[in-house]
Amino acid sequence: MIVETMNQEQNIKYLTSLLRNQEYTKLIHELRHDHEVDVALFMETLPDDETAFVFRMLPKEMSAEVFAHLESETQLRVVEAFSDEETTSMLNELFIDDAVDFIEEMPANMVNRILRLVSPAKRQLINRYLQYHEDSAGSIMTAEYTRLKKDMTVAEAIAHLRAVGEDRETIYTLYVTDEQRRLEGVTSIRALLLAKDEERIEQIMQHDVISATTDTDREEVAKLIQRYDFLSIPIVDQENRLVGIVTVDDAVDVLQDETTEDFRKMAAISPSEKPYLKTSFLELGKQRITWLLILMVSGMVNGIILQKNEAAWTTMPLLVSFIPMLTDTGGNVGSQSSTLMIRGMTLGEIKISDFFKVVMKESATSILIGAVLGVFSFLRVMIFDKDIIAATILALAMFVTIVMAAVIGGILPLIAEKLKLDPALMAAPLITTIVDAAALGIYFAIAAGLMSLV
Amino acid sequence: MIVETMNQEQNIKYLTSLLRNQEYTKLIHELRHDHEVDVALFMETLPDDETAFVFRMLPKEMSAEVFAHLESETQLRVVEAFSDEETTSMLNELFIDDAVDFIEEMPANMVNRILRLVSPAKRQLINRYLQYHEDSAGSIMTAEYTRLKKDMTVAEAIAHLRAVGEDRETIYTLYVTDEQRRLEGVTSIRALLLAKDEERIEQIMQHDVISATTDTDREEVAKLIQRYDFLSIPIVDQENRLVGIVTVDDAVDVLQDETTEDFRKMAAISPSEKPYLKTSFLELGKQRITWLLILMVSGMVNGIILQKNEAAWTTMPLLVSFIPMLTDTGGNVGSQSSTLMIRGMTLGEIKISDFFKVVMKESATSILIGAVLGVFSFLRVMIFDKDIIAATILALAMFVTIVMAAVIGGILPLIAEKLKLDPALMAAPLITTIVDAAALGIYFAIAAGLMSLV
Repeated sequence: MIVETMNQEQNIKYLTSLLRNQEYTKLIHELRHDHEVDVALFMETLPDDETAFVFRMLPKEMSAEVFAHLESETQLRVVEAFSDEETTSMLNELFIDDAVDFIEEMPANMVNRILRLVSPAKRQLINRYLQYHEDSAGSIMTAEYTRLKKDMTVAEAIAHLRAVGEDRETIYTLYVTDEQRRLEGVTSIRALLLAKDEERIEQIMQHDVISATTDTDREEVAKLIQRYDFLSIPIVDQENRLVGIVTVDDAVDVLQDETTEDFRKMAAISPSEKPYLKTSFLELGKQRITWLLILMVSGMVNGIILQKNEAAWTTMPLLVSFIPMLTDTGGNVGSQSSTLMIRGMTLGEIKISDFFKVVMKESATSILIGAVLGVFSFLRVMIFDKDIIAATILALAMFVTIVMAAVIGGILPLIAEKLKLDPALMAAPLITTIVDAAALGIYFAIAAGLMSLV
Repeated sequence: MIVETMNQEQNIKYLTSLLRNQEYTKLIHELRHDHEVDVALFMETLPDDETAFVFRMLPKEMSAEVFAHLESETQLRVVEAFSDEETTSMLNELFIDDAVDFIEEMPANMVNRILRLVSPAKRQLINRYLQYHEDSAGSIMTAEYTRLKKDMTVAEAIAHLRAVGEDRETIYTLYVTDEQRRLEGVTSIRALLLAKDEERIEQIMQHDVISATTDTDREEVAKLIQRYDFLSIPIVDQENRLVGIVTVDDAVDVLQDETTEDFRKMAAISPSEKPYLKTSFLELGKQRITWLLILMVSGMVNGIILQKNEAAWTTMPLLVSFIPMLTDTGGNVGSQSSTLMIRGMTLGEIKISDFFKVVMKESATSILIGAVLGVFSFLRVMIFDKDIIAATILALAMFVTIVMAAVIGGILPLIAEKLKLDPALMAAPLITTIVDAAALGIYFAIAAGLMSLV
């Protein structure tokens, strides 16, 4: 049977109806044929008291994988209902990275219980993993990889894989190490299968291995996997000893999390990995209010500029009505520029050394845009308000504001990077605030200049 | 030797110096030990006339892979310098998806030359692929996958892999089809290796296959691969016949391209896949000016509101100086909300059916934020301007604006989705324009009300 791809919601409804009607045999049958990810999604929709009940229906070979895909609150509910035996057996089935992810989110008393239940060897491994910084490669790597020795023959290596393969998260990329576990080369099952039985691993392995260390930033590691189309990348310690691998599926999740963080930062929202609908309004308020306050305080300078120029706009009240158009356009241009920079830097297309290229390109682009929008504003005022002085003030201010906004929006993310700040903070909200103040200053300077000429 | 991960720029400098000093033997040696992706990056830095020269230094087994990673302008330069024999030999080495990507970007006369040079079978395949819509699964799939028959034994299957593996882009996931190529199951090399030689494929394969069709949106396909941690996903036609696969590395690139498109849309920039520094200022101007003009015209309503309320702010000029603070804060709140929605919808965390949950959560959150910022604005005016009427007007307007901005920012992306528009268009720039008009309307309505009371 081919599973339709779009019917996740229907599937959940169907499973729920089986559960409600106590058709357990049928439910167990369906769960067994569903993908672990879909079973986990179904379990997320269940009321608290049914979670462990349904979880126990899963065949043993599925349960660890389903568990790894549950949200941590649901995981907690399951293990709270579990006996020590059940917990131990599942912990031993979990891959080390999934076990660590799970434990990291548990309350302290649960962590103690879990660490008591696992084998001493696993406890030691878990403890080591728990020490890696949460943004490091160490925190997302897994210990379930396959090592070969370079003097093995291909036939021996295949036999070895057939013997140990079951435990390994990925056996497609194979790492060759010496007795001290130092990384010497890399090969793949594909290469093994294409080689002759009697060839030595040393002959077929690649000697140039691209690796990362446990403290490499996890985003860097994910980008390496993406750049080189790897299925996994080896993680070594300071002595180049292989300690784990990061797999492509985890890399994809890291890239997605980092993107979400960028989106949030660029909208002046503090980072959080919790889905929106699962976040309480108090938490949401906290995540959003800090930056709003900072921006509001910085924005006070705009009020001061307006108060200082009261004489100008009481003489020519028309000037006030153009303020939103001027500042909004300036803000839009500035955030276009900063978005292009921030995204380009994330993709590795723009570097700090491109500073002058950016200034040139933003200047040229914004002179073009400024000229068009300047002429447009001039005509708009002439048609609707028939005031050539006001039209000239607005057109000039529009032009200068657009050029200034583009250059500020273009260089601030680069300057942030240089100062080791996150460029994503130099996005629309902050740029808008800065550009607004500059635009108002420019506007009234031009107005004062032109009005004194008349 | 372990390749350091961070020294790409140094590596390019070193290779360039070898080329400049005509140390070709050394250069060829280095290129041979570099990763294809890095060689492609190096070639991008070369002046036009040296590209083909360096490309010819590459060992045959690297050249197709390096070629696939070049940008299309560089690819064109290489094939323009190539003889027909060289072109034919490389085209036959390219995977079908890379060949199609390359041909799609070529000028018409080059396409004709290429199609003349490839074998009739490959030409037919290329023509078929060229017909798929550029956003469809068909456009990113590859034909180089491995098929098995369900009555093969494991030993036969392994022998088959060893015979055909060389041509296949991925042999890790194996698809089982009947005589009519209809998809019947899926298995992996891992499962093969762990099974006994005499078992039949039918016994070890999974029967529930998650697949997509050639016209499924490529982003959907990439999300399926991500959700289920697949290395590849089968693509079938309307009769469920297997026609290709999409691999995880291409899925990662699709997700990244879609993210970049979202970032651009959310900053009111038209889509483009060209890197910023390779885009001329004329193109950049064109990509940016359309939305700026639309927003500027829509923003005119703000000017009208201000003109209509001239009496209010000439009576109390202090009101003018609060306008930027009010509209900026409203814009920031609105873009926070819309960003949370747009990203949540992309991640599948928020659906149209969550409309009322969103309204409730945005209301609760913004009442909290509005209360805090309202009190803050009140105190600010009392301290600096000592005007209780103005303070009350601003505080009330701030509160109402924030709640209104959050709700508008929260629901517009959902409404866009319902209307089959792209939610990413309902981002900061458009939200700001809408919220500004509403904020000004609210502000002067409150001002008029309070001032008439005094």
